[in-house]
Amino acid sequence: MKVAIIGATGYGGAELVRILRQHPHVSIHSVHASSLLGEPLTGSYPHMQTIVDDKLQPVDVNKMSQEVDLVFMATPSGVATELAPQFLENGVKVIDLSGDYRITDQEVYRAWYGIDPSESKLLEKAVYGLTEWVDVDLSEVNLISNPGCYPTSALLGLAPLVQHNIIDEKTIIVDAKTGVSGAGKGLSAATHFAETNENFKIYKVNQHQHTPEIEQGLHRFNDQVGAVTFTTHLAPMTRGIMSTMYATAKSKTSTKALIELFEESYRDDYFVRIREEGTFPSTKEVYGSNFCDIGITYDERTNRITVVSVIDNLVKGASGQAVQNMNKMLGIDEKTGIDMMPVFP
Amino acid sequence: MKVAIIGATGYGGAELVRILRQHPHVSIHSVHASSLLGEPLTGSYPHMQTIVDDKLQPVDVNKMSQEVDLVFMATPSGVATELAPQFLENGVKVIDLSGDYRITDQEVYRAWYGIDPSESKLLEKAVYGLTEWVDVDLSEVNLISNPGCYPTSALLGLAPLVQHNIIDEKTIIVDAKTGVSGAGKGLSAATHFAETNENFKIYKVNQHQHTPEIEQGLHRFNDQVGAVTFTTHLAPMTRGIMSTMYATAKSKTSTKALIELFEESYRDDYFVRIREEGTFPSTKEVYGSNFCDIGITYDERTNRITVVSVIDNLVKGASGQAVQNMNKMLGIDEKTGIDMMPVFP
Amino acid sequence: MKVAIIGATGYGGAELVRILRQHPHVSIHSVHASSLLGEPLTGSYPHMQTIVDDKLQPVDVNKMSQEVDLVFMATPSGVATELAPQFLENGVKVIDLSGDYRITDQEVYRAWYGIDPSESKLLEKAVYGLTEWVDVDLSEVNLISNPGCYPTSALLGLAPLVQHNIIDEKTIIVDAKTGVSGAGKGLSAATHFAETNENFKIYKVNQHQHTPEIEQGLHRFNDQVGAVTFTTHLAPMTRGIMSTMYATAKSKTSTKALIELFEESYRDDYFVRIREEGTFPSTKEVYGSNFCDIGITYDERTNRITVVSVIDNLVKGASGQAVQNMNKMLGIDEKTGIDMMPVFP
Amino acid sequence: MKVAIIGATGYGGAELVRILRQHPHVSIHSVHASSLLGEPLTGSYPHMQTIVDDKLQPVDVNKMSQEVDLVFMATPSGVATELAPQFLENGVKVIDLSGDYRITDQEVYRAWYGIDPSESKLLEKAVYGLTEWVDVDLSEVNLISNPGCYPTSALLGLAPLVQHNIIDEKTIIVDAKTGVSGAGKGLSAATHFAETNENFKIYKVNQHQHTPEIEQGLHRFNDQVGAVTFTTHLAPMTRGIMSTMYATAKSKTSTKALIELFEESYRDDYFVRIREEGTFPSTKEVYGSNFCDIGITYDERTNRITVVSVIDNLVKGASGQAVQNMNKMLGIDEKTGIDMMPVFP
Repeated sequence: MKVAIIGATGYGGAELVRILRQHPHVSIHSVHASSLLGEPLTGSYPHMQTIVDDKLQPVDVNKMSQEVDLVFMATPSGVATELAPQFLENGVKVIDLSGDYRITDQEVYRAWYGIDPSESKLLEKAVYGLTEWVDVDLSEVNLISNPGCYPTSALLGLAPLVQHNIIDEKTIIVDAKTGVSGAGKGLSAATHFAETNENFKIYKVNQHQHTPEIEQGLHRFNDQVGAVTFTTHLAPMTRGIMSTMYATAKSKTSTKALIELFEESYRDDYFVRIREEGTFPSTKEVYGSNFCDIGITYDERTNRITVVSVIDNLVKGASGQAVQNMNKMLGIDEKTGIDMMPVFP
Repeated sequence: MKVAIIGATGYGGAELVRILRQHPHVSIHSVHASSLLGEPLTGSYPHMQTIVDDKLQPVDVNKMSQEVDLVFMATPSGVATELAPQFLENGVKVIDLSGDYRITDQEVYRAWYGIDPSESKLLEKAVYGLTEWVDVDLSEVNLISNPGCYPTSALLGLAPLVQHNIIDEKTIIVDAKTGVSGAGKGLSAATHFAETNENFKIYKVNQHQHTPEIEQGLHRFNDQVGAVTFTTHLAPMTRGIMSTMYATAKSKTSTKALIELFEESYRDDYFVRIREEGTFPSTKEVYGSNFCDIGITYDERTNRITVVSVIDNLVKGASGQAVQNMNKMLGIDEKTGIDMMPVFP
Repeated sequence: MKVAIIGATGYGGAELVRILRQHPHVSIHSVHASSLLGEPLTGSYPHMQTIVDDKLQPVDVNKMSQEVDLVFMATPSGVATELAPQFLENGVKVIDLSGDYRITDQEVYRAWYGIDPSESKLLEKAVYGLTEWVDVDLSEVNLISNPGCYPTSALLGLAPLVQHNIIDEKTIIVDAKTGVSGAGKGLSAATHFAETNENFKIYKVNQHQHTPEIEQGLHRFNDQVGAVTFTTHLAPMTRGIMSTMYATAKSKTSTKALIELFEESYRDDYFVRIREEGTFPSTKEVYGSNFCDIGITYDERTNRITVVSVIDNLVKGASGQAVQNMNKMLGIDEKTGIDMMPVFP
Repeated sequence: MKVAIIGATGYGGAELVRILRQHPHVSIHSVHASSLLGEPLTGSYPHMQTIVDDKLQPVDVNKMSQEVDLVFMATPSGVATELAPQFLENGVKVIDLSGDYRITDQEVYRAWYGIDPSESKLLEKAVYGLTEWVDVDLSEVNLISNPGCYPTSALLGLAPLVQHNIIDEKTIIVDAKTGVSGAGKGLSAATHFAETNENFKIYKVNQHQHTPEIEQGLHRFNDQVGAVTFTTHLAPMTRGIMSTMYATAKSKTSTKALIELFEESYRDDYFVRIREEGTFPSTKEVYGSNFCDIGITYDERTNRITVVSVIDNLVKGASGQAVQNMNKMLGIDEKTGIDMMPVFP
C-alpha cells in the first residue's frame, strides 16, 4: 500500500515518516508541503539523512490520487476542510490529523477555531479515530478524523468513568501539561528556549480549542456530561502530555474497584496500560511509544476520583494513533509497525 | 542583630545565606548542621567560595543562646520539635522553616507526618508566618512557623476567595507543580537527572503532608472549607511552584470583579502581584525573588474560578518569606534585604 | 538464538532489552542482576510494563550455559574479568560492554581502572568491537570487548586521519561532552537534578579511564600517536555524546579533501554518516539510534583540523553497537534490529 | 548619576535594569529601543511588573544628552558605530556592549563582522573594558568597549599564561560552551525549544566573530600569540559559559605552580576566583553573579595545560562587567551594586 504525507515538514509529519518507514505493509510514496518545494526533507530534518531521500512536493490532488491509496494530512486548520473532499471523491482514503473533522457541530467549530467548518456531509461520515473506542469497522471507512493530543489523553482517562456513570458529570476538571513539541516547528516567543527552559507556563486558560472535542467525546458515552474545565500548561520538556483529571464520585467507591473497571474496559487494548494501585505513570514512561498509561485513585476525604493519563503527544497523541487507525482500516493487527518500546531514560 | 542558621547544608539553609548576606541589619553569626562538622560551608556549596568562610558547627543550644538573637531552623521534621523550646527558654527567637509548628491539631500532624507532634503549648504560641495574612504584631512574637512552599502558593491564591465567600467551599482543587529543588539536596531516585529531565511526574497523590496545612490555613478565613483535593507534580526544572486552583463560584461573577478583589486584598503587599485580565504568570517570572504572582479568571461555561499562583519555592516558599517574617519581627520594612528582581531569563 | 543479559537493571542493560525485543533472530532468555533478585524488571523500569515480564535472576554460569548461546555483560568493572572465562569455557559467547577486555596492556588497565586486569590469554583473544573497523571475521569470535561510549565517538572521528597520516600525531585533543545517562542509574551528587540542570560541568580532567582506550585504538592505525588530551564534560541532558576533536594537519589540506577521505573510509558503513561541507551534527540528530554522525573542517588560519562526531551514548556508544557486533557474529546484516530512525524532536 | 539604556528590550538591556536598579549611586533615567516605542518595558518582561514602570523611548541623542551622564548601548552591531560619536561629542559617556569598538583593526572588523567598522579615531580612544586587566584610569575615560561574553571568559583564563610566557603561543585552543541566552531574545530555529532541549550543538566553527577579539586581547600580553582555534557550542541551558582551554607548556611545570600564578595574577580581583588543585568550576556556580571562576591543571603525559573558566554570559559576560566598568569610571568600589551571590541551585 502506498501513502502520501501532506504537511511532512511539521513534527507530526516527521513522526509519520519515522513510524511508517518501519511499517511492513506500507510505503511512503511521497511527501508534500506548502513551502520548501523541491528541497529534500532532510534539509528540514538532518536526522533523516541517508535514510530518507524524498523531496518535498506540492499537493496535486489528481496526480496523487492516481499514485497513492491513502493520504495523511498533518496540516494546519482549514487545509483538510478543502482537500479531503477532493481526495475522497477520487477514491483516496484520508486520515486527517488536524481538527477539521473532529467537531461535528459546525457552530461549535466556528466558535473555537475561528474559521469556517468542513461541510456537514463529510463531518457526518468522518469517524473520530480514538482507536480504542471506535465502534465501527474501520476497514469500511474512508475518512478518519484523528483525535487531538490532549483529547486522546483526556478521553482515554475519563471514558470508563462516564460510560459507567461513576462520576458526577458536572464536576469534571482536566488539568493538562504538555511538552513543547505540541506547539509545532513554527517559531514563537512561547517556545523560545531561553524563556521556556526552567519555566512552567499556563496558556489559553478556558480557551483551548480542544475543549469542545473533549466534551463531545465524553457526550458519546454519557449525554449528561456538562461543560468541562480544561486547562493547559507548558512544561519545559519536548515530548509528553500528562492529564490530571478530577471528578466527584456519584457514590462512595474504592481505588481497587476503579482500577478493576479500567482494566476491564481496556482488557483488549494493547496500547492502554493501567497502573497498579498506589502507582502512577510519568510521561517519560511512554516516550517515543504509542502507549497511554493510566493511574487511578479515589480519595475518601473528598469523595473525588483522580485519573492520571500520559501519552507521547507526537505518537499516541498524533502520528502513532494515525497509523493505529490505518492498521484498522487495512484490517491488520493494530500494533503493526507501532510496537516500539518507550525510549527510557 | 546576630542570627544562626541550623540546617545550613540544605537548600533552604543555603538560600538563607544568600539572602541574609545582603541584609543591612543582620549578620550570620554561625551555621550549623548535623554532619560535615568542622568543614567549611563552601565544601557543600562551591558557589559560596571566597564569599562565605563559615565552618559547619554542631548545635549547642546554650552556647548559641549566648551569641545570637534569632535562630533559623531549616531542618527535617522533628528537629524543631526538640530544639525550639530550648532556644525559646533561653530567650532566643526562632523561625522554623520545617512543618513542626504549622499544624495546630496534634493528631492531624501525627497522621500526615507520621511522627510525634510538638508540644501543644508551643503550637498555640507559634504564629503561622504567611506574612501577608499575619494579623498579630510580629515584633512581639518569639516563634514563627514559616509556611510550606505549596501552602504559601495555595493560600495566597485562595485566601481572598474564601474570606469573601466567593467560592463553594467543598469544591476546592489545588493542582500544584514544583521544581525539583523542593525535594532537597538529599539523593533519591525521584531526583536522578536521567529519569527526571524530559519527564513530568506526579507524586504523593492525595497524601502530601502539606494538605492539612492548606486546609487549616483556609479554615482561618472560613470555617466552612471542607477537605481540599491537593495534587503535587514534579516538573523538569529546579526552582518554581505553580498552583493551578479550581473552585465553583457561589454565584455568577466576572474576571474583572475577581481581579479587583485580589488587588484590593493585596493592595499593601509589595510581594504579591496581581496580573491583568487575560494574562497569567509563569514560574520564571519570580525566579530567585520573593514575589508571588497571581492570575485569576472566571469561566461562565462552567461557573468555575481558576486561580494561578507562582512562587520561587526556595524564596517566597521558604527562606525569603522567613526573612520577610524576620523583618516584621524586627519592626523594619518587610522588603529589607529581599527586594531582588527576578532573574530572567 | 537465545541470549542472557547480565546487568539488566543498568541503563545499558535496559537498552539491550529495548533493542533485542525487536530483533527478528534473537530472543532474550533471561535477565540477571546482583540485586533485586526475583523482582520483575518492570519494578526498576515501569516503562516496560506489559511488554516485558522477566524477573531478575542471579548469575548461575552453569545453568545459563545450558540455556543460552550468548551473554551480554553490562556490568561494572571487574565482573566480566571474573565471569567471562567461565562462560567461554562452557562454549557460551560473550559480548562485554564493560572495560574489562578493552585494554590489552594489563599495567595500563591497572593504572587507570585501579583494579586487577583480566587474564592475558583472554585479553589477547578478545576482539575490540569498534564494528566499522573490525578486521577479523566476527563469526569466528567468541569474546567481543564492546568499546566505551567516548572511545566509540572519538575513534570513529579520528581513525581516517591517523590511518592516512593526515595529522600530527602529537597534537590530538578530544574535548567530549556527554549526557547524564552515561553516569548510570546509580545515585550521585553529580547527577542530582537540581545541581545538574541548567549547569555545565567538567569532570575527571586528564583522568578519565577511557583515555588509554582511545590511545590504544589510535595506535592500531598509526603507532606514532602520542598521549592524547581527553577531557570530559557533563551537559544538562540525558542522552548523547559530542566529541569535538582537534589536531594539526601535517600539510595544508582542505575541508573538501577531508570530507572525501571520510566518505571513502565509511563508504560501506551504514551507521556512520558524514556531513556536507559547512554543516555539523548535533546530538539529538542521532537520539535513540545507532548512528554516528561526523562533521569535518579545516582551518587555514591555524592549520588545524576539527572533527565533530556525535552518538547516542546508550546505543552506538553501548547497547546498539553490542547488537551490531552480535549481528556480525551471527553472520547476518549488521543493521538487523537496530535500524531505528533517530527520535526527533 | 543618571544613565540611559539603549537596547533595553534585549537580554543584555534587561540584565542592566536588574543590576542597576539595586545600585546605590545610579538611577536609570530612561530606557530606549528601536521598536515597541511607548510600550512599557514590562510588556516585554512581565517579571519586572510593579518594579519598573519605564516606557520604551526612541533614541534622541540631543534630548538624552541633556538628561543623562552615561549611556549603555546594548545594541546590535553597527548601532554604536553610529551613535557613540554623537553622545561623546555631547559630553555623555558611553559604555558599548556591542562589538563595534572592540576590534582596533578596521579590516579585521570588516572581515569578521561583515559591516563597516567604527571610525579609527574613536577606535583608538575606546578602552577595552576587561576590567581586571584595564591598565588606565577609567575615571578619565569616556568610551568603554565592553568585552564579548566568550572573550571575557577566554581572556581571563589565558591572560596569566601568555603574559608570563608559560605556553607555546601557537598551540592555543578554546573550546567554549554557552547557554542559549547568548543568542538573544530574537527567535531562531537554533533556539527553538523542541530542537534545543536535550540537544548539544556546535555552531560557527572557526567563524565566530569573537575569534579576533580573543586574539587581539592575547596580543596585548604577548605579541607572539598566533591564530587561536576557537569553537563554540550551544548547551541546553539558558545561562552560563564554560571555556575549556588547551595549550602546550613551553617547559615542564606543575598544577601547583600554575595555580599560584593565577592566584597571584588575580590577588586583588574580587570577581575572579581560582579553584583549588583538583577541582574545577561548573557554570551554575556563577549563575546570576559577576564572578569568573577558574580551574587549572597541568598534564605531564601530554605537557599540556588545561584551563577551565566559567561566567554567567549575561552578567560578567555582559551587563555585570559593564557596571563594573561604570563603577571604575565613577571612581567607586568595583563591587558596588554587583556583589550578588550566585543563585544556586
